[in-house]
Amino acid sequence: MRELTIEQAASLLKNKDNIIVLMHKSPDGDAVGCAYGLSLALRAIGKKAEPLCGDEIPKDYDFITNIFEHQEFEPEFVVSVDLATTALLSGKAAEFSEKIDLCIDHHASNTGYAKEGYVDGKIASCAEIVMEVIKCFLPDITKEIADALFTGICTDTGCFKYASVSPSTHRAAAELMEYGADSKYICRRIFDTKSKEKLAMERMILDTLIYDSDGKIALVCITKEIMEKSGALQGDTDGIAAIPRQIEGVKIGVTLKEKENGEYRFSVRTGDEIDASSICKNFGGGGHRAAAGCTIFADFETAKEKMLIACRQALEENA
Amino acid sequence: MRELTIEQAASLLKNKDNIIVLMHKSPDGDAVGCAYGLSLALRAIGKKAEPLCGDEIPKDYDFITNIFEHQEFEPEFVVSVDLATTALLSGKAAEFSEKIDLCIDHHASNTGYAKEGYVDGKIASCAEIVMEVIKCFLPDITKEIADALFTGICTDTGCFKYASVSPSTHRAAAELMEYGADSKYICRRIFDTKSKEKLAMERMILDTLIYDSDGKIALVCITKEIMEKSGALQGDTDGIAAIPRQIEGVKIGVTLKEKENGEYRFSVRTGDEIDASSICKNFGGGGHRAAAGCTIFADFETAKEKMLIACRQALEENA
Repeated sequence: MRELTIEQAASLLKNKDNIIVLMHKSPDGDAVGCAYGLSLALRAIGKKAEPLCGDEIPKDYDFITNIFEHQEFEPEFVVSVDLATTALLSGKAAEFSEKIDLCIDHHASNTGYAKEGYVDGKIASCAEIVMEVIKCFLPDITKEIADALFTGICTDTGCFKYASVSPSTHRAAAELMEYGADSKYICRRIFDTKSKEKLAMERMILDTLIYDSDGKIALVCITKEIMEKSGALQGDTDGIAAIPRQIEGVKIGVTLKEKENGEYRFSVRTGDEIDASSICKNFGGGGHRAAAGCTIFADFETAKEKMLIACRQALEENA
Repeated sequence: MRELTIEQAASLLKNKDNIIVLMHKSPDGDAVGCAYGLSLALRAIGKKAEPLCGDEIPKDYDFITNIFEHQEFEPEFVVSVDLATTALLSGKAAEFSEKIDLCIDHHASNTGYAKEGYVDGKIASCAEIVMEVIKCFLPDITKEIADALFTGICTDTGCFKYASVSPSTHRAAAELMEYGADSKYICRRIFDTKSKEKLAMERMILDTLIYDSDGKIALVCITKEIMEKSGALQGDTDGIAAIPRQIEGVKIGVTLKEKENGEYRFSVRTGDEIDASSICKNFGGGGHRAAAGCTIFADFETAKEKMLIACRQALEENA
């Protein structure tokens, strides 16, 4: 992949038309915000442009998608946003895997799959980069674009809470609010709204909480029964893995999710001391130091006990 | 109260010594951050200065208070920060109620109790104002001051979520991070850490959740039994009132807290449509349009039913 500057990426877009903007599967706020924000900006300078995702866009973001009118055209130029690897493309978006002209991303692990690209792994959200690109060809960002990009920033930073947040993240948020981004509405919608079903699910999951190793390990279970009884959606379980880890004194937070036919998906979250990915490697999984995952095929009690043994061992090695 | 500019408030402080900085009772992060941050800044220019609160500072803020060495001196000048009215002073701080020389505040409802003051009711946190004052006499804000002021901003805005957040809030946060504020640590400590007892309390409170009026009203109870069984602290209930309101479709969220001898404290939270303060006025309480409170003396079921009747009526009037 040839590395471009922000300005070169912008002028490339300015010289093209009929542009497809690809999002990764299970799209989050940053993917949606970047793809819709960039498409709107390209349309504002007279291009045809269309975001494309293989999966459905979660309804949390309908304030971005509902006001968007779709266009039909023969694609001539393909951009990806917030996409670390083409392995994360699904459905119709995956058909463009080999044909990505330009990549704009903030993952240090970006595989360099595009012809040309701008990648900065130190930026908290891809939306901050997309904003800089847009400003090169559209000085007056509209309220709709600002809303989309602000959504990207605040979702990828847990509303400005994560370690990745830098002074420039806050400055980008300030600038987008001046362009009209409705911070109050977006934050409320995304961070302070829960369905009755999701709350019921959380309540039942809290009932499964167990502590181990003098409270240094906490484990919660998302069983099929809880999902059925509560009526919660699959996407509603996204934030659950953070719950056991945020308990005072807990060094390893484990979330077990029951799938079909004796398959149990584990999410492991740790603080600075313990390496979550090495715990998950015992079971063929992996991830980052603070957040990793793996799958164990067994009955419920065996799967849970296997994971707890691996966690206790990690604690001992660290003692 | 004579109104000062930021610069005048700063030069007043520069010309005084042996300064007491008052905090309101039940101090929150903004009160603590402003009082400790300002005291540290005054010490940095050679003054004696000491924060004063009638109540204990919650241990959430021990990263600010633990590194602070106390000084003894005869007070010569008294400043209040984040204090709307002297009615909110308690204990030793209340002894200075009539002797406040300078007030720095962000409450539009400030009663003008001080000799001189700077009050801006449009600013999201008092810490943003205190930062501007400090910058007038101390251009190089230290990491410790920055941590204290950043804590003020993020706690008073629900980590940049509330309606009060403006572009200048984000810019102040960016500036404080550049002065060394540890956003990652502070946000994690305040927003992503829960004691085992607090989590146990939340779980029991969720078990009390009831819906009324087709899910437009949600009510939770904090009973004495829950507080005893969970072992949670009184301060742990602070965020509970937000839970019923954030449920999708709920227009009125009610939290009932059982006190001694048949006293029930109600917190009422509403969206844009319903006026919470008018509901609470039925019972001699009050507050803001979106957040209000009142007390009902009765047995548990009667108190709950009285409140539900008032809420149903508010819904009907709004229908």
